[in-house]
Amino acid sequence: MDIYKESLKKHYEWKGKIEVRARAEVCSKEELMLAYTPGVAEACRVIHDDVEKSFELTRRWNTVPVITDGTAVLGLGDIGPEAGMPVMEGKCALFKAFGDVDAYPLCIKSKDVEDIIKTIKLLAGSFGGVNLEDISAPRCFEIETRLKQELDIPVFHDDQHGTAIVIAAALLNALKLAKKKIDEIKVVVNGAGAAGIAISKYLMSFGVKELIAVDRLGILVAGDTRFNEAQQELANISNPNKVTGTLADAMKGADVFVGVSVANCVSKEMVRSMNRDPIIFPCANPLPEITPEDAKEAGAFIVGTGSSQYPNQINNVLVFPGLFRGALDVRASTINDAMMKAASYGIADCVKEDELSVEHILPFAFDKHAHEVVAAKVKEAAIQTGVNRI
Amino acid sequence: MDIYKESLKKHYEWKGKIEVRARAEVCSKEELMLAYTPGVAEACRVIHDDVEKSFELTRRWNTVPVITDGTAVLGLGDIGPEAGMPVMEGKCALFKAFGDVDAYPLCIKSKDVEDIIKTIKLLAGSFGGVNLEDISAPRCFEIETRLKQELDIPVFHDDQHGTAIVIAAALLNALKLAKKKIDEIKVVVNGAGAAGIAISKYLMSFGVKELIAVDRLGILVAGDTRFNEAQQELANISNPNKVTGTLADAMKGADVFVGVSVANCVSKEMVRSMNRDPIIFPCANPLPEITPEDAKEAGAFIVGTGSSQYPNQINNVLVFPGLFRGALDVRASTINDAMMKAASYGIADCVKEDELSVEHILPFAFDKHAHEVVAAKVKEAAIQTGVNRI
Repeated sequence: MDIYKESLKKHYEWKGKIEVRARAEVCSKEELMLAYTPGVAEACRVIHDDVEKSFELTRRWNTVPVITDGTAVLGLGDIGPEAGMPVMEGKCALFKAFGDVDAYPLCIKSKDVEDIIKTIKLLAGSFGGVNLEDISAPRCFEIETRLKQELDIPVFHDDQHGTAIVIAAALLNALKLAKKKIDEIKVVVNGAGAAGIAISKYLMSFGVKELIAVDRLGILVAGDTRFNEAQQELANISNPNKVTGTLADAMKGADVFVGVSVANCVSKEMVRSMNRDPIIFPCANPLPEITPEDAKEAGAFIVGTGSSQYPNQINNVLVFPGLFRGALDVRASTINDAMMKAASYGIADCVKEDELSVEHILPFAFDKHAHEVVAAKVKEAAIQTGVNRI
Repeated sequence: MDIYKESLKKHYEWKGKIEVRARAEVCSKEELMLAYTPGVAEACRVIHDDVEKSFELTRRWNTVPVITDGTAVLGLGDIGPEAGMPVMEGKCALFKAFGDVDAYPLCIKSKDVEDIIKTIKLLAGSFGGVNLEDISAPRCFEIETRLKQELDIPVFHDDQHGTAIVIAAALLNALKLAKKKIDEIKVVVNGAGAAGIAISKYLMSFGVKELIAVDRLGILVAGDTRFNEAQQELANISNPNKVTGTLADAMKGADVFVGVSVANCVSKEMVRSMNRDPIIFPCANPLPEITPEDAKEAGAFIVGTGSSQYPNQINNVLVFPGLFRGALDVRASTINDAMMKAASYGIADCVKEDELSVEHILPFAFDKHAHEVVAAKVKEAAIQTGVNRI
């Protein structure tokens, strides 16, 4: 089966992967008077007196738009807002299926950071949270940072943090099998875009001390002004031994390789140069940095990719439905580090010790139990850090 | 039953009057690969090559946000964006129930005309059409006019045109019973806000020659600079005999009264001063300009109000679901005058000659057949005027 051809055919048949359903009956005179005029005026008045009631009297409490500007869609790049919509819609279907979150897609026809921030801020009263999607780096950093500061609802850029959360979960379980401690390993992250930078920072927050990030220009090292602002910031807090050079140089003696870059940039030789029992997460889509076959042949202990065709799919579908479910359930004002870590540990713990193997370090994306666990853990963390409002 | 109390209770129970439903299954590995990555990339590529395909490969073709700034909600006025949301949500439920349109509510936290226009323009690639709602006059005129000019999807401000369309339908049938011709009658419209101005212009486009609009300051007459710009523009094209004075002066000898103003501003005496068989549409909400009982006592031939408690409810629920259904079905680039008129005639024709009576001039709002007729007529008019794109 040609998956692309078949998917296109299905898209023509679906005529949209989500739709709206009415929860209130409006088919008689009395029902109309309750759900619409004149009765509805009372709900309006109550919210006018206390805007927080909008989370109880409308669907706001459960509503999260999936918002893009279409600049970094899948591996396709800047394909424009409308062309990003099939991905956004798919994500909305996943939000509903696995998190019971009401999500709808919005695309913004502007690449201007201020335009995007303002548009979302002006609409925020309609939502319980905001999922940013497929916005290119480095614009996505400022957009997310500013919105988190200026809004009192959760704002989450999935490409950055969703990926980081699931990679951390995969790493936690892989390290159990490799019998290595997180504060003793050396990690290489290849691709210092939105995902790569977020993954690097996030893994360091778990205790990774020696992390080297690499981008097209080579290893990120403090003081190298060829890199963009976000990359220089990462260089300043990573690569403690100030290693310079290429990806091959970075990988020598490394315990973990994380790729969010391009296909086929990792050779067997590079894998062979790593420390014992190397853990390899080549997540480039649709084709990985090195195929699992080649990685295994070169001595990889554990391999996880972005693809569902191989074992250990590193899929952020494991994250966002439960993460928002948990945050919405307690009307969290933000998604903080503790909530994200709770999601990582929650995902990791879904694979019981006796099930854990080099071919099974993560639950499956369509495992409903995993999503429930994530939601429960995130909710708990929100309460513990006091960002819950109910 | 206290309708307000009961409605509030129901709103707490509903926890939102709409929700999102997934149309694509995403519960197995293969389903995920088709609806989401990697398969979805193909739909993205096709839209990237031809943006019109976004109407076929996503739900865009059937999606219409109900957008407000919360400045003119029901009779409650400027209650703020979040407080307007229960009305928007109710409208979305009606859109689905009667037009099978996927509508979701968006509120914009700004009263600035440029902000509102820009926000909607930036999002337009997500939608098949735009329903503007409860935006105060005169701001609503510029917002609608500009968006109609600058977007290639239908933009419709329901408070203006929905009301005008259903009042025209009511008038067409009332005139059959009164045996009067539309180009021979004198019409008084009280309340020259968004709805009143739109109704006045629209009725004149049906052939009404003598129309007098009245607002708080009295009769609108050409050259009176106390009125706002939109009102002066209306004054210049109405009131051909340059009548001056109060509402009472305007109503002397009139055949038709249309009220979109405030409760109890019409006396029995005023009704008695009208021409034979007066037609009275006091549509102020929740209380009319004169009660149907008083109007009848004073000699009114036909009375229609905004309330479902009396016969002849003049309810724009009769308009917007079918109007958008028809427009979306042919991917219309706009909603033009011919399409609106087709809706008025369609609604009027739903009441057959032998059913027509002074207590039954309009179909009921929850009559599904009426909505189908409106959709079919609007679609036909769109094709005839060449604004269809399929």
